[in-house]
Amino acid sequence: MNLVIIGLGTAGYAAAMEAAKRGAHLTVIEKRDFETFSPCGLPYVVDGSIPSFEDLKHSIRLRNTEKLLSHSVESIDIQKKTVRTRDCKKGDYKTVPYDKLIIATGAIPVIPPIKGARELLGKGTFVVSGIGDTSELKKKAEVSKSCVVIGAGAIGLETACTLHNKGLQVTVVEMLPQVFPQAIDEDMALDVKNHLEDSGIPVVVNARVESVTQDGGVVVTADREYTADFAMIAAGVRANFALAEKAGITIGKWGIKVNPKMETSAQDVYACGDCIETYSYVNGEPWMMQLATSALQMGQVAATNVMGGNASYQGCLNTFASELGGKEIASCGFTENQAARFGYDVAVGEGAGRVTADYYPGEETVKVKLIVDKKDHRLLGGQAFGVGAFWRVNVISLAVKAHMTVDEFSTMELAYTPPLSTSHDVLLKACDFVLRRL
Amino acid sequence: MNLVIIGLGTAGYAAAMEAAKRGAHLTVIEKRDFETFSPCGLPYVVDGSIPSFEDLKHSIRLRNTEKLLSHSVESIDIQKKTVRTRDCKKGDYKTVPYDKLIIATGAIPVIPPIKGARELLGKGTFVVSGIGDTSELKKKAEVSKSCVVIGAGAIGLETACTLHNKGLQVTVVEMLPQVFPQAIDEDMALDVKNHLEDSGIPVVVNARVESVTQDGGVVVTADREYTADFAMIAAGVRANFALAEKAGITIGKWGIKVNPKMETSAQDVYACGDCIETYSYVNGEPWMMQLATSALQMGQVAATNVMGGNASYQGCLNTFASELGGKEIASCGFTENQAARFGYDVAVGEGAGRVTADYYPGEETVKVKLIVDKKDHRLLGGQAFGVGAFWRVNVISLAVKAHMTVDEFSTMELAYTPPLSTSHDVLLKACDFVLRRL
Repeated sequence: MNLVIIGLGTAGYAAAMEAAKRGAHLTVIEKRDFETFSPCGLPYVVDGSIPSFEDLKHSIRLRNTEKLLSHSVESIDIQKKTVRTRDCKKGDYKTVPYDKLIIATGAIPVIPPIKGARELLGKGTFVVSGIGDTSELKKKAEVSKSCVVIGAGAIGLETACTLHNKGLQVTVVEMLPQVFPQAIDEDMALDVKNHLEDSGIPVVVNARVESVTQDGGVVVTADREYTADFAMIAAGVRANFALAEKAGITIGKWGIKVNPKMETSAQDVYACGDCIETYSYVNGEPWMMQLATSALQMGQVAATNVMGGNASYQGCLNTFASELGGKEIASCGFTENQAARFGYDVAVGEGAGRVTADYYPGEETVKVKLIVDKKDHRLLGGQAFGVGAFWRVNVISLAVKAHMTVDEFSTMELAYTPPLSTSHDVLLKACDFVLRRL
Repeated sequence: MNLVIIGLGTAGYAAAMEAAKRGAHLTVIEKRDFETFSPCGLPYVVDGSIPSFEDLKHSIRLRNTEKLLSHSVESIDIQKKTVRTRDCKKGDYKTVPYDKLIIATGAIPVIPPIKGARELLGKGTFVVSGIGDTSELKKKAEVSKSCVVIGAGAIGLETACTLHNKGLQVTVVEMLPQVFPQAIDEDMALDVKNHLEDSGIPVVVNARVESVTQDGGVVVTADREYTADFAMIAAGVRANFALAEKAGITIGKWGIKVNPKMETSAQDVYACGDCIETYSYVNGEPWMMQLATSALQMGQVAATNVMGGNASYQGCLNTFASELGGKEIASCGFTENQAARFGYDVAVGEGAGRVTADYYPGEETVKVKLIVDKKDHRLLGGQAFGVGAFWRVNVISLAVKAHMTVDEFSTMELAYTPPLSTSHDVLLKACDFVLRRL
C-alpha cells in the first residue's frame, strides 16, 4: 500500500509515524528543506529562551519511506490518484501515484487588509509562522527598540512578551474588544490585559489598524498613530486548503471537510491538522481550532484508517494554554460567548483564590470560570488565569470529555497538601457558584 | 432542631458550617481550648515555612451556635439522646440533649509497641498530631542536631524534610519495605526514597524499631542502633472511636460504621471524618483513608442529611499528595498492590519524561503510573512523582470518578504550550503503555 503524505507539520508527522508503524510504504512531500519543526516554540527563540531555531527542528527515521524535501505539490488528480510535485531547487516536475493520500498542508498566517501590511512583509512588517520569517523578525528586533504587535492571540501575545523580555518597548493593538478573542471571555481577558500592562506591555483593544507606513514604523488606527521600529502581524492563521480546493475536494466554512475518520469528499483522500475544518466535541458543530495536540490526534486517526484500522476523531475540545510573564491563561470547550452563539442557556460560576493553603506563605492566585448548560447541567467549557491555570483547565477538559454534569464534577476528589493547594480548590469554589445558579 | 457536633476538626467544622447555613440550632463540643486548626500544616511550622502555630488556627462565626470549648465528651446515651460533657478546666459535668448528633472525633496517632516509645513521649520521643505535641517537637529540634524519624508516611517524611531544612541530621526508619506504604507502589516509592537520599535524608526500609532508649537518643532495630538527639514517631493515625464504641454504636474494621448518608447504627447519630471507616469509591469495599478533603465532603453530607436534605458520600478515592524537597508525590485510587489484594487482574503503564517541551530549556521530569482493570479497561488508580505530579493525579482522580476506561482516557485533550508541557504528556505516554498490554 502506497501512501503519500503532503506536508510534514504536526499532523503529517503524526500520520507518517503511525502509518510507518503499521507497515505502509510511504512518500512524504514537504516544501521545506528540512523535515519538521515545532511552530509553538517560535516565540521563545526570539528572546533566546530557546537558544536556536535549529532546536525546533526534528527529523524522523522511518522504514520504507521516501522523503521528498524541498518539494511543493502543484496539483492532485483525484481521478488518476496522482500528485504532481515540483522540486523547488531544481525545478523538476514529477508525478507521484498514490493508493491513499493524506493532505496535511497546515495553515498560513492571515495578513489582514491593512494598507502596507503585505507590501512591507520582511522589511517593516513581520510574521511568526515559520523559521524563516521568525528569524527575520528576530534580526529586526536585535537592531530595534520598539515594536507594535497587531493582534492579541497566542502568537501575538507570546511574542510580545519575548520581545519585551529582549528589552523592546512593545505595544499590542487588537481590533476586537479583548485579548484571546477566540479562547476566553471578556471578563477573563480583562485580567490578562491588566497583567500584561502591569508587566509593562500596553494593550489597546477595539483598535482596528488601517495602515502601516514608513517601513513599518507607523501603525495607524482610526484614533491615533503608534510609532515604533517595526510592526509584527499576528492576526491568526487560516487553513491552507488551496491545493485541495483546486482538486475538487469539498471545502467547509473553515477548511477541508472531513468526516470523523478524516476522510475527505474524494475517494482514498484523507486530510488532517490545521488545513481541515474540525468540529466541536461538545456539540458536533463545525469549528476551527488549530492546535498541535488535535493535529497529532487527527494525524494518528487518519493513518490508522488509511492502514485498514478503525479510528475516529471525536471532535475538538479546544483545550488551550499560553504562558505570559509568569502567569498561565488556559481554556477549553465553549466560552460563555460561544455557548450563547450556539443557543445554549448557560450558568457560569467563577472561583478565585490562593494557590497554596491560606496559612501557607505565598501570594499566588488563580481564577477559574465554568460554563454550564442550564438544561442538563453539563459542563460546556472552562477558563482559568493565574498560577496552575494550565492544569485546572486540563481537569475541566477531561470533565467535558466525560460529559460530566457540574453536580458530578463538584464531587471530584482533588489532592491536598498545604504547599501546593487549598483544601477547597478554586475549581470547587467555581462549582459552588454555578450550582447556586442552576 | 437541636444538633450536637462532637469535635471541631475538618469534618466537624464542615458539618457545623453546612448545618448553620441550613438553620440548625447548634452545640459544638471541642476538647481543645481553641476551635479548630489545620493539622496538615503542622510539619511546615517546624522549619518556619509557616511562621507560627497560631497561623494554623481558625475560628468560625456561626449563628445559633453554642460552643463548648475545653470540653470533653465522657459518654453518649443513644437511648436518652444525650451527651455527657466535662469542662476540662473547671471539672464540671453537664448533660446536653440532642435531636441529632454528629460524631467527628477524628483520629489519634498510633504509638507502635516499641519499648520506651510511649514512656518517653514529650521527652525523647515526639509526635506531630496537634499543636501542643508539635510545638514540643519544635522546641526539642531547636536544641538538637539530629533526629530519627520512625515511619515513612506523609507526616513522617514531610516533617523529616522540614527538620532537615532546619539543619538537623535526619534519618528515616520504616518498618515496611517502602516509603508511603499506603499510598504508592514499591517502584514509585523507590524513586521517592532516592530523591530523599539525594537531598541528604537517609531512608532505611525493612527496619522494625524494637526500642527507644536513653531519652530518645538511641533507636534500636534488629540490625543496628541509630544515635540521635531525639526520635519522632510517625507511625500513622487510627480512628478515634472509643466514645462511639462505648455508646454501643457499631464499629467496623477501621472505624465507626456509617452508610453513605453518614448515619451510624444508632438512630439520629451520624459520624464523619477520620473517626469512621470509609469505603472505596472504586469498589465500595471498607477502606481507611484519613484525608482532609474527604473529611470536608463527609461533614457536608452528614449535616445536609441531618437538616433534612438528601446527600450521599460516594466513597473515597484516596487522592493524596505530598511535597518533599521540591518534588511532588501523588496518588489516587488503588495502587497495583491494593488492586491485586482486592482480586483485580490489572495492567499497568508508566510514562516518564520532561515537564516542558523537549526543545524548551529545563531539566524537570515527572513519572506517571496508571493501574487499569484488564477485564473492563477501567482506571483503578494512578500515581505520579516529580514536578506537576500533583495535578496529573488530580486528572487521573477525575477519570476514576467518571468511571473512564483507559481507552477513553487516552483521548483526553490536554493543553499544550512549550514552557508548561510537551505535546504528548507523560499521562498519555502511560496510556500508550497500558493499551499495549490490554
